[in-house]
Amino acid sequence: MHAYRTHTCAALSKDNVGDTVRLSGWVNRIRDHGGILFIDLRDHYGVTQVLCDPDSAAFAAVEKVRSEWCIRIDGEVKARAAELVNAKLPTGEVEVFVRDIEVLGQSAELPLMVFGDQEYPEETRLRYRYLDLRREAMQRNMTLRSDVVRSIRQRMWDKAFREYQTPIITASSPEGARDFLVPSRLHPGKFYALPQAPQQFKQLIMMSGYDKYFQIAPCFRDEDPRADRSPTDFYQLDLEMSFVTQQDVFDTVSPVIAGVFEEFGGGAKVDAPESWPQIPYKEAALKYGTDKPDLRNPIEMQDVSDHFRGSGFAIFAKLLEQDGTEIRAIPAPTGGSRKFCDRMNAFAQKEGLPGMGYIFWRKRQNPLSASVSDAMVKTSLSLKAAFGNQEDRIRAKRALSEAAKEAGEVLKLSDEEAEEIVDRIDVLEAEGNSKQAELVRNAYFGEWEAAGPLAKNIGPERTEAIRQQLGLGVGDAAFFLGGKPQAFQRVAGKARDAIGEELGLTDTNRFAFAWIVDFPIYEKDEESGKIDFEHNPFSMPQGGMEALNGDPLAVNGYQYDLACNGYELVSGAIRNHKPDLMLKAFEIAGYGEDEVKKRFQGLYNAFQYGAPPHGGCAAGIDRIVMLLAGTSNIREVIMFPMNQRAEDLMMAAPSEASSDQLMDLSLRVIPQD
Amino acid sequence: MHAYRTHTCAALSKDNVGDTVRLSGWVNRIRDHGGILFIDLRDHYGVTQVLCDPDSAAFAAVEKVRSEWCIRIDGEVKARAAELVNAKLPTGEVEVFVRDIEVLGQSAELPLMVFGDQEYPEETRLRYRYLDLRREAMQRNMTLRSDVVRSIRQRMWDKAFREYQTPIITASSPEGARDFLVPSRLHPGKFYALPQAPQQFKQLIMMSGYDKYFQIAPCFRDEDPRADRSPTDFYQLDLEMSFVTQQDVFDTVSPVIAGVFEEFGGGAKVDAPESWPQIPYKEAALKYGTDKPDLRNPIEMQDVSDHFRGSGFAIFAKLLEQDGTEIRAIPAPTGGSRKFCDRMNAFAQKEGLPGMGYIFWRKRQNPLSASVSDAMVKTSLSLKAAFGNQEDRIRAKRALSEAAKEAGEVLKLSDEEAEEIVDRIDVLEAEGNSKQAELVRNAYFGEWEAAGPLAKNIGPERTEAIRQQLGLGVGDAAFFLGGKPQAFQRVAGKARDAIGEELGLTDTNRFAFAWIVDFPIYEKDEESGKIDFEHNPFSMPQGGMEALNGDPLAVNGYQYDLACNGYELVSGAIRNHKPDLMLKAFEIAGYGEDEVKKRFQGLYNAFQYGAPPHGGCAAGIDRIVMLLAGTSNIREVIMFPMNQRAEDLMMAAPSEASSDQLMDLSLRVIPQD
Repeated sequence: MHAYRTHTCAALSKDNVGDTVRLSGWVNRIRDHGGILFIDLRDHYGVTQVLCDPDSAAFAAVEKVRSEWCIRIDGEVKARAAELVNAKLPTGEVEVFVRDIEVLGQSAELPLMVFGDQEYPEETRLRYRYLDLRREAMQRNMTLRSDVVRSIRQRMWDKAFREYQTPIITASSPEGARDFLVPSRLHPGKFYALPQAPQQFKQLIMMSGYDKYFQIAPCFRDEDPRADRSPTDFYQLDLEMSFVTQQDVFDTVSPVIAGVFEEFGGGAKVDAPESWPQIPYKEAALKYGTDKPDLRNPIEMQDVSDHFRGSGFAIFAKLLEQDGTEIRAIPAPTGGSRKFCDRMNAFAQKEGLPGMGYIFWRKRQNPLSASVSDAMVKTSLSLKAAFGNQEDRIRAKRALSEAAKEAGEVLKLSDEEAEEIVDRIDVLEAEGNSKQAELVRNAYFGEWEAAGPLAKNIGPERTEAIRQQLGLGVGDAAFFLGGKPQAFQRVAGKARDAIGEELGLTDTNRFAFAWIVDFPIYEKDEESGKIDFEHNPFSMPQGGMEALNGDPLAVNGYQYDLACNGYELVSGAIRNHKPDLMLKAFEIAGYGEDEVKKRFQGLYNAFQYGAPPHGGCAAGIDRIVMLLAGTSNIREVIMFPMNQRAEDLMMAAPSEASSDQLMDLSLRVIPQD
Repeated sequence: MHAYRTHTCAALSKDNVGDTVRLSGWVNRIRDHGGILFIDLRDHYGVTQVLCDPDSAAFAAVEKVRSEWCIRIDGEVKARAAELVNAKLPTGEVEVFVRDIEVLGQSAELPLMVFGDQEYPEETRLRYRYLDLRREAMQRNMTLRSDVVRSIRQRMWDKAFREYQTPIITASSPEGARDFLVPSRLHPGKFYALPQAPQQFKQLIMMSGYDKYFQIAPCFRDEDPRADRSPTDFYQLDLEMSFVTQQDVFDTVSPVIAGVFEEFGGGAKVDAPESWPQIPYKEAALKYGTDKPDLRNPIEMQDVSDHFRGSGFAIFAKLLEQDGTEIRAIPAPTGGSRKFCDRMNAFAQKEGLPGMGYIFWRKRQNPLSASVSDAMVKTSLSLKAAFGNQEDRIRAKRALSEAAKEAGEVLKLSDEEAEEIVDRIDVLEAEGNSKQAELVRNAYFGEWEAAGPLAKNIGPERTEAIRQQLGLGVGDAAFFLGGKPQAFQRVAGKARDAIGEELGLTDTNRFAFAWIVDFPIYEKDEESGKIDFEHNPFSMPQGGMEALNGDPLAVNGYQYDLACNGYELVSGAIRNHKPDLMLKAFEIAGYGEDEVKKRFQGLYNAFQYGAPPHGGCAAGIDRIVMLLAGTSNIREVIMFPMNQRAEDLMMAAPSEASSDQLMDLSLRVIPQD
C-alpha cells in the first residue's frame, strides 16, 4: 500500500464499498455524534467523510485530532444508509470506518478558520496565506488562474506563436512608470532594472526575424499601490508580430480573448469577436467618458451644447462662451424619478463635481382631453395640408387656435401664449419646417412633460429638442455636465456606469468588448504647454512623417486598447520601426537625438539593420482572471500578493540588508530623519 | 491583397505557378547573373528565390537592395526549369518574378553576416544579437528551446499538475548563493530579494493544500559567471507534490524528462526510465568521481587500495598509512598503449595532480612456445588433480618444474626463481587455494604481460590481482590515483570522461540517465571542523530524529539528483516538514532556534498548521536545451544573455542610476578607490 494514500479524498464511490483504503488530508471538521467521531477529511480534490467509533483501536488517537491537522487514515469503505447520502458531495454515498490513523502534521490554534465563510481582515489573510489559500473560494480562484493561463498559452500556440523568454535582469525600459533597480555587485555603482514590460525585447525579437512571439511575462513597476493593481509585479500576455497591420493584430488576439472568456465565463454571454466595435478614442471619450467603456451598459452620452448656448440656464450658457467647453448629456432610460435623479446628483457631488443638472420626463400631469388632443393634431395637420391655400390656412389656423385655447386652459397657458405658439407653428409650417413645427407642438401639447429646474430654465422647446436628440420619453431622465471635457469626463463616465447599474440597464451576465482605436500620439500639458507622449512612445503615427510635420496634437497613432466591461484588458500598437520617424517623434516630445540613441540604444541600433514593420499588444492576465473570478480585488487572484504597502508579511519582505551585503554592492543607506 | 504578404517565404510550391503573390522578408543573398538579379528572400519560415530582370519596372529599385534589407515584393510565381530545381529548399521548384518592390527597412553595413557560417567573437554576437539571432543555427536553437518548454508544460499538465506563479520580488531565499537585492522605495533602507528558486513558496503551496505544483520559474543568483551558467537569471522546471515518497517523485519526473529527450533528441538513444539506475552518492563518487556521472561511458572506477598496501610502490604504500586515503583505479579497456597512457598522465598533470600511475597489458613479448605453454597448463592441472596423493604430486611437480624451467628461459627467470614460483603454486594448491595458484601462474606464465613502471614496482602478482579485479586483458590499461578521495576524485572523474571519449567507449549518440540518491545531509569543513549542510537545508533526514541524535555525518537525506551525460539535470528532495526535526537539523549546522524562526519564518510558521509530507525537484531548462542543442555554452540557448561579465552590451546594462532614482531609494553609492 502506498505510504500516504490509495485514493484522493474525491475518489471514493459506491464501487469502493468493502475496499480497505488509505486517505491523507486535512481535518475540515470534526464532530462527535453520540460518541462516534465524524471527520470531513479534505484534500485538494474533495472531501470524504470518515468516522471512528469507540470500538476502533484508533479511537484514542482520533479523539485528539483537531481542525486542520494533517492526517493519514486507513479504513474500510462502507455505503451510507439511503437517508444519510449527501448528494452535494461526489463521495457522498460512502464513508470510511477508520482502523488506523497517523498524524502527519499537527496544527496549532488557527488564526483563521479554513472551513466556513467567515471573513477576516486582509492583513490576517496575507500573514497566514497558507491557511487562507486552503479555503474553498481561494482554491477555486487559484485553479481558475492556472487554467486560464494554460488556455491562453494553448490558444497562442494554436495560432502558430512561439513563447520566447526575455531577460528579467536588464536595462531600464521607459514605459512611463518607475523602474525597480537592482544593484550590480560586479559593477560597483551601476544598476540593472527589472523590465516594466518586455517592450524593447519583443521588438528586438521582431528585428531578429522571429515573426510571432508571445510570452506570459512578468512585469515590474514600482508604483503606488491600488486595489486593482499589484504594487510590484504582475503578469501579461505579451505578443508581437511582424508584417502586420492593426487589423491583423485584432484578428489574432480577439478570438484568443473571446475563447478564454467563453471557456471560463461560467455561461455569461460573450460578444462574438466579429461584432466587437472599433471605437475611435475621441468617440469613446464623448460617448462613455472613458477609453475603457463598459458596453454592457447601453447608455451613450451625447454632446448637447447647442441646446444650451444662449439659453436661460445661465451657468451652462456662460460656460459655453469659453473655448473648449461642452455640455454633455447622459441619457437615463427609465430613470425618470426625482428620487433617482437626486441620488445621481449626489453621486456627482461625492465625486467632486458641483453636481449634475437633470431633466426627467413624466406624463403630462393635466393631460388634454382626448377630444381636444385629437382636435390639436387634426387641425395642426390640416394647417400643414393647407400649405399654399390661403383660405384653408386661415380656416385650419382658426380651428387650431380654438383647440389651443382649450388646451391652454388645461395647460395653464394664457390665451396670448397659446396664440403665440399657434402662430409659431403656423410660420414654421409655412416655411416648410414641419419637423420644427412638430417639435413646438410636442413641447407644449405633447403627452410628456419635462420636470426639473433645468427644464424650467431653458423652456419647453429646448427641452423637447434635447428629448428628441436623446430619444427619450415618459419615465426617462437625462443628466447634464458642462465644462472642459477633461474636467468632467471621468466623473461623467462613472455616473454613466452608476446609472446603468442602478437602473438595471447593464447586463451583468455578459462580457462586452470594444477595440478603442486612433489614440492621439501626443498630449499637451495644460499648465506647462509641453507636448509629451500620450501613451507609448513606440507607436507608429498615422500619416507618417507628413503628419508629424503638421500639428502634433492632431496626429493619431496605430495604437489601440481592448476594453471589456469597463476594464482595459489589452493595449497595443503597430510600432514605429523607421529610425528617422522615431527620431522625429521623440524630437516633438522634446528628446534630442543623442538622448534617444542613448536611452533606447538597443532598439534604435537594431532599427538600422533592416527593421520589419511589426506590432502587437499585451493583455493583463491578473485582470482577465479578476473579471472571470468576479472580483475587483487583484489580491484574490494572486497566490502570494504583497499588501497595499508593498509588504509581504508572511515572508517579511522587504527587510534590512546586512552590512556585508551593502558592502558587496558598494551601497550605503541614507539615514531617514 | 494583404499589406505585406500573401504567403510566407516557405509556402510557395508548384501549385502556385501563375499566381501573383506578395512576399516580405530579408535579403539573405543577392546575386547578379548576366544582368538578372537573384535574391534569396528569407523570413522566419524559409527562403524563396525571387528574381528581377532589367525589363521589370522594379529593376532600378531592386538594384539598390543589399543584404539584410527588409523588403516587400509583388510578383508572379514561375516554375523553375528542371535543371534549376533546388531539392534542398521546400520552395525550390519555383521562383518569383518581381513586378513591384517596397523597401520596408534598409540596413546599414553589417557588423556580422547573417548568411553563411562565419564565426564572430561572442562580444560582437551579443552586441548585435538581433543580427546573430537571424542566423540559421540560432533560429534553430531558439525554436528548440521554445518547443522544449512547451513540451515540458504539456507533459506536466498531462500528469495533473497545475502551474502556479510565485512572487519574483520577495524576501531572501537561502539557497546558498548570493541574492540579488532590490531596494524598496516605500520602505527606505529596506530591500526585497529576487528568489534564488521558489523553494519556500512551493513548499508553502503544499502547506496551502494544492497537492501538485509546477512552474517554469525564473531563478536569480548573483554568481560569478561560468560557461554553463547564466550570471544572473535562469529558468527551471520547478515542481512539488504532497503525500509522496522519493520513488513517487522519480516516477513522475522520469517520464517527463525521458519524453522530452525522445521528442527532441534527434533520434539519439534515450534510456528508458525503468532502467535508470539509482546510485547512492558514495557509490557514484567511487565509481565515477562525481555525483553527475556520464553513464554513456561504461568505465567504473574501483578501490584497489589493498593491492598497494605494503607494496613495492612506496608512494602509494606510504600514502595508505594515512587515515582516509585510498588508491583508485580507472580501467581503460583498449587503452593499452604507452602513448595513450602518457597522454592521460599529462592530462592529470594539467588538472593539477602530480600525475596518474598506470599499467597496461600487452601480449607477452617472448611468448612461450605452444608446447611449453601446454605442458605448463597440463602439469599444473595434474598437480591440482594430484592433491592428497604424494606420489602423483611429486611426479606432477617435477613435470611442472621442467616446464617452468623451459619457460623460465624464455621469460628470463633464473632456475631458482622458476623453482620458487612452482613451489608457491604447489603450496597454494596444497592449501586448496587454487584461485590464488592460478593468479600466480597467470602472473608469471600467462599470455599477457603488464607494462609500466608501476607494474615493475609492485611485481607481477599484485599486478595480476589488479588485472583480475578490473577484468582487463591484453590491449587494456588502468590508471591509478591515490590520496584522500576529496583531493583527487574530481580529476579522476574528468580523467574517466577523457578516457571514455578518447577510446570511443562513450556512446555519443545516447542520453544516459541515473538518479543519484542518499546524499549526506551534512559535511564537515576540513579546516574549521564545522558541520554545515552539504546540499539543501530543507531535506528530510533518513532515520528522522533518531538519526539526527547520532553521528550527523552518517545521516543521509531523502535527497536526489538526476544525472544525464555528465550534467546534473534535476535536483530535489523529500522535504523536512516537521518543525521539531527542522529545528534539530538546523541546530546541528549551528543555527539557533531564533535564527531559524527569523530566516525561514514563512516556512517555519506554516509548518505549525498541519504540514503535509511533501517533496519535489527542479530541472534546469537551460541545461536540458543545451544538451538537446548539442552545445556546452549556455548563451547559445538564451535569446538575450548577459556576457561573462554580467553585462548586456546591446541594452547597456547595468548602468548608472540617476541621482533622483538614488534619492527615491534613500541610497548612496560608495565611491570606489
